[in-house]
Amino acid sequence: MTVLLEIAYRGSAYHGWQVQSGTKLPTVQGELQKAAEKLIGGSVSITGCSRTDTGVHAKQYFCTLSAERINIPCAVIPYALGSLLPDDIAVLEARACDEDFHPRYSCREKEYVYVFYDSPRRDPLLADRAWWVMQRLDEEKMSEAAKKVLGTHDFSAFCASGATVDDKTRTVYSCCVERDGHMVKMTIRGNGFLYNMVRIIAGTLADVSRGKIGVEDIPAIIESKDRKLAGQTAPPGGLYLERVIY
Amino acid sequence: MTVLLEIAYRGSAYHGWQVQSGTKLPTVQGELQKAAEKLIGGSVSITGCSRTDTGVHAKQYFCTLSAERINIPCAVIPYALGSLLPDDIAVLEARACDEDFHPRYSCREKEYVYVFYDSPRRDPLLADRAWWVMQRLDEEKMSEAAKKVLGTHDFSAFCASGATVDDKTRTVYSCCVERDGHMVKMTIRGNGFLYNMVRIIAGTLADVSRGKIGVEDIPAIIESKDRKLAGQTAPPGGLYLERVIY
Repeated sequence: MTVLLEIAYRGSAYHGWQVQSGTKLPTVQGELQKAAEKLIGGSVSITGCSRTDTGVHAKQYFCTLSAERINIPCAVIPYALGSLLPDDIAVLEARACDEDFHPRYSCREKEYVYVFYDSPRRDPLLADRAWWVMQRLDEEKMSEAAKKVLGTHDFSAFCASGATVDDKTRTVYSCCVERDGHMVKMTIRGNGFLYNMVRIIAGTLADVSRGKIGVEDIPAIIESKDRKLAGQTAPPGGLYLERVIY
Repeated sequence: MTVLLEIAYRGSAYHGWQVQSGTKLPTVQGELQKAAEKLIGGSVSITGCSRTDTGVHAKQYFCTLSAERINIPCAVIPYALGSLLPDDIAVLEARACDEDFHPRYSCREKEYVYVFYDSPRRDPLLADRAWWVMQRLDEEKMSEAAKKVLGTHDFSAFCASGATVDDKTRTVYSCCVERDGHMVKMTIRGNGFLYNMVRIIAGTLADVSRGKIGVEDIPAIIESKDRKLAGQTAPPGGLYLERVIY
């Protein structure tokens, strides 16, 4: 039997979503598995929609929970499972789904938000939740640069070197930058993202704001497929998986 | 030489502000002392404006830093000291002050904010930052109750039993409750607050919302000076010291 779980989590305490075999590092998948096995009283298998990195947060995340028998009604699972989970992981909803539904391969679209905080003063309440930069960001220049990543491209230049995926072509549907006080938010939607892609785009926009990279350089950087030409990788704490669309 | 520091911190990782003698529990004062002694190269003494509890946050907090010699210009202290502190404590400003200035006794007024989050769904990004209650709160009833604590009273009924202070008379200048989506915020200003007083007022407002305590019962509860008649103590993670006025 398979149940689709909609969850949310704060990633600060975890080494990403995925259980890392051979280690005991805490992961979101690992915590869910422990809680679900306690609840169900047997072994379960959990498959996620994305391999979020260490320290990355998710406001909406889907995973399947499969077990031979799940004797708990779906309406009760969020509360029953939630009460066994740490405070930084919540189960928002559970519903029955087909056994062959794959939360990653079936996904049509994802939306991520990257949060910058530009202020001469550090805000300790935003530690691990936003990228603190002391100099004021130029959100208009960043918006201009954001438009340059739209469309279907081979995004090799915006992919961490460790990635093993073959086809690095992805489509970015939208990428917007907005300011709200000292918070600058980049919202990006696409059909999928490569390893570190959103963080490298965010870091590149910060480099554009600082004048290290020109708005007009972006198309050539994409074209080059050379990771070294794109900007820095923005830190993980500013990144939120916001929505997953099937 | 004495310097007045304006700081901010997220309290989740600390056993409150104050160093607890004979223990090695992490405290905000302890972290500041370690960092300042490293920076200055000698022993320092740190005195705070309030003894915030375990898990309580401060968006503005003042403390004095005294040492025989402080050879670092005040303008540099926030950066120099900040770089030696953990991410959840920030130094916002430093300025020279009189040796006999006491950040607690000189304080005229404090403002606290207590944050409730009412939603059937838990938000893991608000863990340790707001009090999650599943039932919708009645912010209008809470507002009515909040008005009943205004003025000068003996607040013994709203003081944790462990408190050692003799005079439990305090003046509350304002207490407002506002809703913003699923967040309900209580903002309270007064000339001083007893041990747990803000959290007991917040808990009492929640009990009023649930119908366990009537709005019209509040004056009699204050009058009684009986802690058992007031509501529950709201959890610490929802509490923020917001402003300190001299």
